[in-house]
Amino acid sequence: MAKVNIKPLADRVLIEPMAAETKTASGLYIPDTAKEKPQKGKVVAVGPGTKDDLVTVKIGDTVLYGKYAGTELKLEGTDFLMMRESDILAII
Amino acid sequence: MAKVNIKPLADRVLIEPMAAETKTASGLYIPDTAKEKPQKGKVVAVGPGTKDDLVTVKIGDTVLYGKYAGTELKLEGTDFLMMRESDILAII
Amino acid sequence: MAKVNIKPLADRVLIEPMAAETKTASGLYIPDTAKEKPQKGKVVAVGPGTKDDLVTVKIGDTVLYGKYAGTELKLEGTDFLMMRESDILAII
Amino acid sequence: MAKVNIKPLADRVLIEPMAAETKTASGLYIPDTAKEKPQKGKVVAVGPGTKDDLVTVKIGDTVLYGKYAGTELKLEGTDFLMMRESDILAII
Amino acid sequence: MAKVNIKPLADRVLIEPMAAETKTASGLYIPDTAKEKPQKGKVVAVGPGTKDDLVTVKIGDTVLYGKYAGTELKLEGTDFLMMRESDILAII
Amino acid sequence: MAKVNIKPLADRVLIEPMAAETKTASGLYIPDTAKEKPQKGKVVAVGPGTKDDLVTVKIGDTVLYGKYAGTELKLEGTDFLMMRESDILAII
Amino acid sequence: MAKVNIKPLADRVLIEPMAAETKTASGLYIPDTAKEKPQKGKVVAVGPGTKDDLVTVKIGDTVLYGKYAGTELKLEGTDFLMMRESDILAII
Repeated sequence: MAKVNIKPLADRVLIEPMAAETKTASGLYIPDTAKEKPQKGKVVAVGPGTKDDLVTVKIGDTVLYGKYAGTELKLEGTDFLMMRESDILAII
Repeated sequence: MAKVNIKPLADRVLIEPMAAETKTASGLYIPDTAKEKPQKGKVVAVGPGTKDDLVTVKIGDTVLYGKYAGTELKLEGTDFLMMRESDILAII
Repeated sequence: MAKVNIKPLADRVLIEPMAAETKTASGLYIPDTAKEKPQKGKVVAVGPGTKDDLVTVKIGDTVLYGKYAGTELKLEGTDFLMMRESDILAII
Repeated sequence: MAKVNIKPLADRVLIEPMAAETKTASGLYIPDTAKEKPQKGKVVAVGPGTKDDLVTVKIGDTVLYGKYAGTELKLEGTDFLMMRESDILAII
Repeated sequence: MAKVNIKPLADRVLIEPMAAETKTASGLYIPDTAKEKPQKGKVVAVGPGTKDDLVTVKIGDTVLYGKYAGTELKLEGTDFLMMRESDILAII
Repeated sequence: MAKVNIKPLADRVLIEPMAAETKTASGLYIPDTAKEKPQKGKVVAVGPGTKDDLVTVKIGDTVLYGKYAGTELKLEGTDFLMMRESDILAII
Repeated sequence: MAKVNIKPLADRVLIEPMAAETKTASGLYIPDTAKEKPQKGKVVAVGPGTKDDLVTVKIGDTVLYGKYAGTELKLEGTDFLMMRESDILAII
């Protein structure tokens, strides 16, 4: 997991997307061009939350999120996604 | 019912869609291409709810939901739908 | 009135649409193709309501609703409409 | 004024539109095709109101409403408009 | 100022638009086709207001309003504008 | 600063736009056609505010506002902008 | 950091964008035309906040913000961005 020195504001959460699977459920390898955009990631930083929007995920949690959730950010050469906790679907 | 290790956030509910009927009400078999997208499913995981959005369905409930409700998620080779409880129409 | 084993969620109401009139006000019979989509129905199931959206109609009430209100649902071979109580115009 | 046996829900009001004027202010008769859609009507039924939307018009009031306000309803051969009280502009 | 027997509902205000200026600031007369749509008018009737929308203008006030504010109403041969007080910009 | 006899309603503020700069930061004069629409102005009248929208600017303040903020008003030959205080960006 | 004499209103924050990187992560220099629009900046002025929108960033903080956040303002020859604190993603 990447280490970043960043303090998200409000109920924002910084996520490091995890690489998409390169094997299908049936064990077949899929070529690069067929890979789906990843929807799974590690929480690397969380905001303090607000009165109305509490933050319940923790650093290190693996989370699922929608395909178009969040804003892409590049920090020290690594791609991250910054999103509100309400855009996170579940902890797995 | 599929078992999944997942904790939906807020008032989200994870649903395993049930196979569409292959017989019409009058007993006729319908070919695959005519099947309607299923609108019935089993609840397999529920979020903790929020102050404003309580979760009232329980794991194991069979529920009805609108045709375009929820976000599709593939977990361990099975297709699920993640939706807010407010997108669920009824328990049957 | 159809009997259904279903528990609508929140302030939802399940309605069995009533057949459109086949006679005009002046007593003329109208052919099938001219029939208006029905806007009258019987309440067959009601949700528990929520803090903000109380349910005031009762099972058995005949209600009027707008032409495009609700979501169509087929249960045991019968067509129903599921709508929020706020989509019901009046009890007649 | 038409008599109808109907109970509008919430803050809805049932209005019987009044015939459009067939004379202009200067006394000229206007042909049928030039008549404006009526914007004046009689209140024939009122809902109980809600906590947030009180109903202040009374049965028998003559009211003004915007050209496209309300939903058209035909009851026992008569055309009515069902609208929320907030769509009524004034009592005259 | 026109006299009308009308009771606006809620926070609505009835305004009699004032004729557009036919002279420019520099004293030149402008032809009819160049006149701007009037944005100034006299308040002729006010509603009782609501808990959330108080009415602060008074009958007789001259007010300014945006070019497209309000609904046009013709009463006894005179054109009026019915608008919410929040559409009135200022008293002059 | 122009003097106007006008009472804005609610949280509205009347602003007299200030002339756009005719010199660039580097001291070059710019032709009329290149001038940006002014975004700076003097407050000439303020409304009383509302319970939810307090007015904090004062008559005489020089303020900055977005390029398309407010409604243009011509009073006694002078062009003004009427806007809600929330459209004002800052006092300078 | 630029010094400006400006008081943002409400929860607005004035930011001086920082120059985009001219080196890629792998150390290659990139030509001017390939530079991304900067998304990093220094806070140079903050508003007092409102009851609902507190301001938590401080003058001097380096912040990240979305690509299209804020309104561009030119003050004394320098380009700034004025945005609401809710448009700021994080402090770095």
